[in-house]
Amino acid sequence: MTRITIYNEFVHEQTDEAVREVYPQGIHEAIASFLRGDDVQVRCFTLDTVEGITDEVLDSTDVMIWWGHLRHHLVPDEVAQRVKDAVNKGMGIIFLHSGHHSKPFRLLMGTSCNLTWREDGDMERIWNVCPSHPIAQGIGRYFELPHVETYGEPFGIPQPDEVVFIGWYEGGEVFRSGCTFHRENGRIFYFQPGHETFPIFYDPNVQTIIRNAVAWAKPVYRIPVLEAPHVVRPGQE
Amino acid sequence: MTRITIYNEFVHEQTDEAVREVYPQGIHEAIASFLRGDDVQVRCFTLDTVEGITDEVLDSTDVMIWWGHLRHHLVPDEVAQRVKDAVNKGMGIIFLHSGHHSKPFRLLMGTSCNLTWREDGDMERIWNVCPSHPIAQGIGRYFELPHVETYGEPFGIPQPDEVVFIGWYEGGEVFRSGCTFHRENGRIFYFQPGHETFPIFYDPNVQTIIRNAVAWAKPVYRIPVLEAPHVVRPGQE
Amino acid sequence: MTRITIYNEFVHEQTDEAVREVYPQGIHEAIASFLRGDDVQVRCFTLDTVEGITDEVLDSTDVMIWWGHLRHHLVPDEVAQRVKDAVNKGMGIIFLHSGHHSKPFRLLMGTSCNLTWREDGDMERIWNVCPSHPIAQGIGRYFELPHVETYGEPFGIPQPDEVVFIGWYEGGEVFRSGCTFHRENGRIFYFQPGHETFPIFYDPNVQTIIRNAVAWAKPVYRIPVLEAPHVVRPGQE
Amino acid sequence: MTRITIYNEFVHEQTDEAVREVYPQGIHEAIASFLRGDDVQVRCFTLDTVEGITDEVLDSTDVMIWWGHLRHHLVPDEVAQRVKDAVNKGMGIIFLHSGHHSKPFRLLMGTSCNLTWREDGDMERIWNVCPSHPIAQGIGRYFELPHVETYGEPFGIPQPDEVVFIGWYEGGEVFRSGCTFHRENGRIFYFQPGHETFPIFYDPNVQTIIRNAVAWAKPVYRIPVLEAPHVVRPGQE
Repeated sequence: MTRITIYNEFVHEQTDEAVREVYPQGIHEAIASFLRGDDVQVRCFTLDTVEGITDEVLDSTDVMIWWGHLRHHLVPDEVAQRVKDAVNKGMGIIFLHSGHHSKPFRLLMGTSCNLTWREDGDMERIWNVCPSHPIAQGIGRYFELPHVETYGEPFGIPQPDEVVFIGWYEGGEVFRSGCTFHRENGRIFYFQPGHETFPIFYDPNVQTIIRNAVAWAKPVYRIPVLEAPHVVRPGQE
Repeated sequence: MTRITIYNEFVHEQTDEAVREVYPQGIHEAIASFLRGDDVQVRCFTLDTVEGITDEVLDSTDVMIWWGHLRHHLVPDEVAQRVKDAVNKGMGIIFLHSGHHSKPFRLLMGTSCNLTWREDGDMERIWNVCPSHPIAQGIGRYFELPHVETYGEPFGIPQPDEVVFIGWYEGGEVFRSGCTFHRENGRIFYFQPGHETFPIFYDPNVQTIIRNAVAWAKPVYRIPVLEAPHVVRPGQE
Repeated sequence: MTRITIYNEFVHEQTDEAVREVYPQGIHEAIASFLRGDDVQVRCFTLDTVEGITDEVLDSTDVMIWWGHLRHHLVPDEVAQRVKDAVNKGMGIIFLHSGHHSKPFRLLMGTSCNLTWREDGDMERIWNVCPSHPIAQGIGRYFELPHVETYGEPFGIPQPDEVVFIGWYEGGEVFRSGCTFHRENGRIFYFQPGHETFPIFYDPNVQTIIRNAVAWAKPVYRIPVLEAPHVVRPGQE
Repeated sequence: MTRITIYNEFVHEQTDEAVREVYPQGIHEAIASFLRGDDVQVRCFTLDTVEGITDEVLDSTDVMIWWGHLRHHLVPDEVAQRVKDAVNKGMGIIFLHSGHHSKPFRLLMGTSCNLTWREDGDMERIWNVCPSHPIAQGIGRYFELPHVETYGEPFGIPQPDEVVFIGWYEGGEVFRSGCTFHRENGRIFYFQPGHETFPIFYDPNVQTIIRNAVAWAKPVYRIPVLEAPHVVRPGQE
């Protein structure tokens, strides 16, 4: 059993007709629908219900998926801190697209997570830089997304543990579009595609990558985190 | 010219006679006194003056040194955030001993930074794991500190970029006592020794390491951080 | 099904009575006996049969285990190269103890793999530095081996991807006793314990770690390695 | 004083008129001429004199620069091994362009170092991914080379310590065009540009990068490498 919790801001879909046409049920439902299965349980939260992301929810989550864009600042600091702590304790997490500027991602990275961007509907060709990585299983040398928002380097992150995908944009940029990180006991995957105005979450390669990333980020087992305890000499416990 | 800013909590030295005897002018002065020189300018801040660590101070600092222990929670969040941002922009920083639980270190690491500890006055033998590293210059295969506070693994940090020193404690623990990290444009060194009740900052090897770390962490040059700017296609600027 | 291939030099056990008493069937059989199972197939090679480690054998191996000590130089260069190539293509490999100086390990590391050593029968306390790592599953804060050969830092390896275990020796050394590396498509685990004169491979913690390491190093899937092919523009294939 | 040793195969320039026109004195002289200075001593070797790269030469070299293409296999194994050993001991090294398939680079990486390639005279736009890195000093957000040989991912290397530059090719590929590695005591920089038929080594950005890389790779100090010595307990030496 894999227990997934999706956070989607769910603002664009309600305020922008063009976005609603692409994701009538919201981005969270688009993602949930290709993940749900006999062995996979999915819960969804949106900005309206973000306070519901409690410790209890996080403790019973194997992998979280985070999509946000316009309202990062409205996610309460305590919720962001809770998510960070849950990752430190072992929960996996996947940040999608504009989630690069979300509070939990910034807390986990320790950097600005800045980048450059433009919206010209460029084609992105995503190169498979690490073809034997579990997240790249089933992906060829590259695949293409006909229209994306363009992100450009430098991406203000620490050197990733693994760069799995690098994006090539027809307008001339490159971007480390798929990166892994570890933070204490938890695994993190950042994935660049996912702009709200394009049907990116219906793309089979994107779906394969997100499915793979869930399997990769799921903790093998959980251990209690030590909280700076006073100890006695080994052998004298 | 190297411009150093030291933060020392400066509580133990005023409240605990045993600590005052070791560091009558405070830990900050003990550190400043072996760093100051014709080409090195040192400013000091303590918990009482911590609000003075402004953006102006940080912008004119090459390397910060941070010692704190009992009063981490009294350092204002805005100061901690300012220090983190300064590191992201390129300022170097050295965290000493119990600074592992300081707000800026935790913000930069993205983890709990927990560890185990005991105070039995153990001898620590510090092994030089990375002997050609600039921070290890002048250090032999190992050196010994006769009495330290013992820190034990697991140390809740991301895998460091480089483990430079590993400590062996006579009571049976090991610890990654010297670690480097990069966060965006800034370099970070964590160094385990430095307990307030022992004269560790008078030890010549410790002084050599801190001097080396300052030289290593000093930015080669500073660049403005991009703040997620909208851009046009390359070639059309 | 997991297909394991063990190489054990198998010289000590035939020439040294004390070693034969500990490992009467050879170190390879001691290891094979706790790995074999319904779902695990084990093949063994020794120095006498080392030429049998052909490409066919390696292509049908998920994880290799390598133990050697006195006769590294008698392993043919072509065999060492074949093993390195197989790792690059995705085969997992575990190097035990004095395998640090074997030809395949040195080829994969690109370094000297030197260390210091002494044989005083020290106790080693092995600290679990990365407790949520798949290789550490089932291991507590630390465990002890009553008598080992002591290895000391600096260990002439690149900074590992992950330091999972650090050893503390009663005589005063530390050692990065459990380290992971990736080389192209293959995963590598180095584990320090395993001296021939001590019954280390009968220790339950050691067996757990080797079993875990096999599961971790087994490739998720195999991909053909590109051999610097000439290509045409993407989209024109 | 910085002591540089350049190896250039020097075959193309003698056998191919088009290459001779670009580099009439050979690629080594083109590189040497922008590096030489009051404080910089440069020695050059070519395939004809490659045996002259002795331990004495390497011991008195701070940074080596390696360009080869057609005749990697004619570089004697002993010379390649000597270069690798010198890097392990602390010598810096820069591999240019097709040097990715040279014997010393492969020995240092432990991988195939394969990639894909095509020669269509594409423009390469080189993005500065790590703008505060010493090797990137003086380089803007990106720069362009009007005609290069195209290299494509996956590049069969271990995850680099730092990806400093990523190349965007007008024909559609990306490549990790500037990467750093450490191997024991030595620093390594790989740089993609440098095809023999284009005047790449006259480009001011390329020259800046190579000059920066020399400064970065130069060892801070040299230490003797331990050769697996038998030792006594610490404190009993």
